[in-house]
Amino acid sequence: MLRTHTCGELRGEHIGQEVTLSGWVQTIRDKGGLIWIDVRDRYGITQLMLEGDTDASLLETARELGREFVIKATGKVVERTSKNPNIPTGDVEVKLTALSILNGAQTPPFKIEDETDGGDDLRMKYRYLDIRRNPVRQKLELRAQVAREIRNYLSDLQFVEVETPVLIKSTPEGARDFLVPSRMNPGQFYALPQSPQTFKQLLMVAGMDRYFQIVKCFRDEDLRADRQPEFTQIDCEMSFVEREDILQTFEGLTKHLFKTVRGVDLPDFPRMEYADAMKYYGNDKPDTRFEMKFVELNDVAQNKGFNVFDSAEIVLAICAEGCVSYTRKELDGLTDWVKRPQIGAKGLVYVKCNEDGSFKSSVDKFYSQEDLKEWADKCGAKAGDLLLVLSGDLDHTRKAMSELRLEMGSRLGLRDRNKFSPLWVLNFPLLEKDEETGHYHAMHHPFTSCVAEDRDKLVSAPAEARANAYDMVINGVEVGGGSIRIHDKEEQSQMFDALGFSKEEAQKQFGFLMDAFQYGAPPHGGVAFGFDRLCALFGGVDSIRDFIAFPKNTSGRDMMIDSPSVIDNDQLKDLSIKLDVKA
Amino acid sequence: MLRTHTCGELRGEHIGQEVTLSGWVQTIRDKGGLIWIDVRDRYGITQLMLEGDTDASLLETARELGREFVIKATGKVVERTSKNPNIPTGDVEVKLTALSILNGAQTPPFKIEDETDGGDDLRMKYRYLDIRRNPVRQKLELRAQVAREIRNYLSDLQFVEVETPVLIKSTPEGARDFLVPSRMNPGQFYALPQSPQTFKQLLMVAGMDRYFQIVKCFRDEDLRADRQPEFTQIDCEMSFVEREDILQTFEGLTKHLFKTVRGVDLPDFPRMEYADAMKYYGNDKPDTRFEMKFVELNDVAQNKGFNVFDSAEIVLAICAEGCVSYTRKELDGLTDWVKRPQIGAKGLVYVKCNEDGSFKSSVDKFYSQEDLKEWADKCGAKAGDLLLVLSGDLDHTRKAMSELRLEMGSRLGLRDRNKFSPLWVLNFPLLEKDEETGHYHAMHHPFTSCVAEDRDKLVSAPAEARANAYDMVINGVEVGGGSIRIHDKEEQSQMFDALGFSKEEAQKQFGFLMDAFQYGAPPHGGVAFGFDRLCALFGGVDSIRDFIAFPKNTSGRDMMIDSPSVIDNDQLKDLSIKLDVKA
Repeated sequence: MLRTHTCGELRGEHIGQEVTLSGWVQTIRDKGGLIWIDVRDRYGITQLMLEGDTDASLLETARELGREFVIKATGKVVERTSKNPNIPTGDVEVKLTALSILNGAQTPPFKIEDETDGGDDLRMKYRYLDIRRNPVRQKLELRAQVAREIRNYLSDLQFVEVETPVLIKSTPEGARDFLVPSRMNPGQFYALPQSPQTFKQLLMVAGMDRYFQIVKCFRDEDLRADRQPEFTQIDCEMSFVEREDILQTFEGLTKHLFKTVRGVDLPDFPRMEYADAMKYYGNDKPDTRFEMKFVELNDVAQNKGFNVFDSAEIVLAICAEGCVSYTRKELDGLTDWVKRPQIGAKGLVYVKCNEDGSFKSSVDKFYSQEDLKEWADKCGAKAGDLLLVLSGDLDHTRKAMSELRLEMGSRLGLRDRNKFSPLWVLNFPLLEKDEETGHYHAMHHPFTSCVAEDRDKLVSAPAEARANAYDMVINGVEVGGGSIRIHDKEEQSQMFDALGFSKEEAQKQFGFLMDAFQYGAPPHGGVAFGFDRLCALFGGVDSIRDFIAFPKNTSGRDMMIDSPSVIDNDQLKDLSIKLDVKA
Repeated sequence: MLRTHTCGELRGEHIGQEVTLSGWVQTIRDKGGLIWIDVRDRYGITQLMLEGDTDASLLETARELGREFVIKATGKVVERTSKNPNIPTGDVEVKLTALSILNGAQTPPFKIEDETDGGDDLRMKYRYLDIRRNPVRQKLELRAQVAREIRNYLSDLQFVEVETPVLIKSTPEGARDFLVPSRMNPGQFYALPQSPQTFKQLLMVAGMDRYFQIVKCFRDEDLRADRQPEFTQIDCEMSFVEREDILQTFEGLTKHLFKTVRGVDLPDFPRMEYADAMKYYGNDKPDTRFEMKFVELNDVAQNKGFNVFDSAEIVLAICAEGCVSYTRKELDGLTDWVKRPQIGAKGLVYVKCNEDGSFKSSVDKFYSQEDLKEWADKCGAKAGDLLLVLSGDLDHTRKAMSELRLEMGSRLGLRDRNKFSPLWVLNFPLLEKDEETGHYHAMHHPFTSCVAEDRDKLVSAPAEARANAYDMVINGVEVGGGSIRIHDKEEQSQMFDALGFSKEEAQKQFGFLMDAFQYGAPPHGGVAFGFDRLCALFGGVDSIRDFIAFPKNTSGRDMMIDSPSVIDNDQLKDLSIKLDVKA
């Protein structure tokens, strides 16, 4: 037996017992007369102690040890003379009677401590050492806990976890698929799923009624920071439901998770129309931890001779509370910030609401004190506040103002990681125009139904139809989203028409689904949550990377195993493919 | 709201309530004055009733219905005049006040009933209809239940479920990998994992201590009946353990599953040496629901002038109890059976142990009654039994006798699907010789350690070394297997030497693992269970196919979505590959 207890287990009650521990050497302090060794495993750290007059071979072994050596230590639990209140095992230590080295260790390339000296690349190459660090390991443990809570909650509600296939069929709609050549079917390929969407709908046609799966999905996209080619989705679908049933069910799940994982009681989730989210936050995933809503100033700011505003489609303001004291330099800095290419505003207008009731703005030349008071009133600003105003065309101005609002929220400390503000965003547009090609594509996906009132528009004016789709947003993060699906073959076919599919293309790619709809498809809908992102939210960090045991870098490369890699020609030949790499 | 109750929910206590149900039309009986409709969902069947004098539009809707139409029905729960004790809702029916068709249905290509008239191909093409049938749906529900029990049991034991990557690195060792061309790294490929073996070992190096995962794995093999290119594994690994810890832990898991899923209390699992399994059952996964062990007759059957036995490496007998009455025709049939190419025996010798104490054999010419009595005594045969004897070289004779033993067990009704006989098979050979190439390869995998006594043989005589490996066998099915792993870089390197890897190959393929071993790898070991197979065992059937929602056929094809499929040239170009298909 390699251990009787873990390194996190011993307490005062164990004093006097003979125990065996195994783990990694965290530190060694050799005071000559006394040697202390801290031994560590996943569960904690225990202090081992060795007196200078113990037998020589024991001492010799102890003096061979280095950091991260793997040891097995036997001894008696004794009370510490100087207790350490910072660790759960701090009342005791183990007085060694036997010590063996289970495995030696080279000095690790970075410190195995909560705050490490390893850079990102080094940490990824030696991920197996990085995971030894508490903050990383705890994130993986948190992830497992969240998964377990999800499974038990949904299973208790009669959801059945069904595994859908990983080797499926390529569908050019949407993002790029990863492809897998089929050896047994030369010239043909499987694709890895971007989501189990069609399979979960088929499970509804199959009468499974309530399905879920925590499942790997794949997207061969150029990786922006914090995207992964393989990611995990909590995929759910229900039959015989309307939107309200879905919102209630998954709001319930989310409240349960926050309660059990974070100890937080979430209130009922407010609901917001997509159109309002865009109007007041310029964003379909508003961070509602703070207000600072957009205010349209067109009626009070235009036609006063200021050409920038007069020629703008929209003039938008936000009110930064208590920021009247911003200096010239700070305001210039903010102007530079909004003019950066990522934000893309042409300039920034400010209005200071002075404590004495007067106003000071960057456009005093064009606007009287009365004009500015009108602005301030519209914005609900009071003395001491600062108005920030952007103008231009609708889409770009909203986008820039959304960024500015978030930035001001951060600067004002309004985005507390330990505060959670959830909401549902409802009634997204059904279609979205691709600015490059001018084609419409499905904003959610091509299986999303219209809201009932807009059903006729699917044929007559698809670009104006609203989808029966919903997103769950928490703290400005789109945690999940879904829709009530089309379950009628005719409607599905009209949707493919609206997306510009020919009948042949639609039949070739999704014929199996439309065929299935002929055999009695029930009304159904569902939702999918980004599991990696959800875990990061629970963990209170922005990056999903440390919630994934073995992530890939932005080139899609696993730095630890050095993959992808070149393969043998024989393997290619077996698969009936050749390389076609440009020199 | 589309339903107030499910179709399996209504009981006597609901009489008088107004309810709404939704589901599929199972049957319609129109007696003119009365119409009955059975409506079905995942939870059950409820009878709806409609009197001939109800309002005309309701009647009209009812008469439009066909099998598998999706309906929503509202009415009052009433007591049935003639109750149906065979279904849980059989005491009541719903007297309709409203009925609407949610979706029509074409007549399905086979009957949605427990015993269907659909052939295998049809069932697979219309899998979404097949799953509507109770026996198929229940298998998927059973699978979900088993998975849930596994997760909760292991999580309670501090195992952490960690997701390992699906896009990994190709390792030519073992079966063929599925490959995935990397668009971002032209000319390079990912592979899909045959198992998360190296990752789970790295998680042990990383200090995760106890890991599990229910995970999809992939093998591009020519598919024999009942193999799938993607399959699911229960993958587990533990640190600071010896073999005994692992056997106890997973025997505990298995007992728990049998108890909770099947209501069966399993006894402690007997343990059998691999060498004994081969000697007594000719098979490393013996079906121990019945005895009928092999008996070696070399010492009593050779050198009596029967050349077939004299020239044989081994003469093996089994005793078929009570089979003395087998007719000439039955015995000839059995002889033909063992001579089939799949079994490959050259002939079959029998000895009848007559009720009068005499013997009648097919080799009476060579053996006296005393000789045959010696055989019978060695076999523990009594009057009324039948000895069946095969001879030849060791491997083939064992293999053939193993098949014959199983066949006789089946014929004698000794392989009851509701009886479960588990055991551990221990101490497998470390290496196995490939008969074609003469090369050795790892019987388990190249990360398996030797039993301690054979450690020196890894260098001096690797072919004779025994692995510290174990298989869990139930009813002749290898349910799972594993080993104590190598955790020492030197030993791992010797293992690669024994397998004929050059240092360069070993470093190229598994360098990351050997590197990891330098930084303090703990002693560790684990096990992997075939989840599909385990579910089939619980379900009491041989085939794994119906425990997989969307299985592939023996050509690796998904008949429902018609995958794999041809893809666009543009997609190939993006991936820097070309087809190389022979005409």
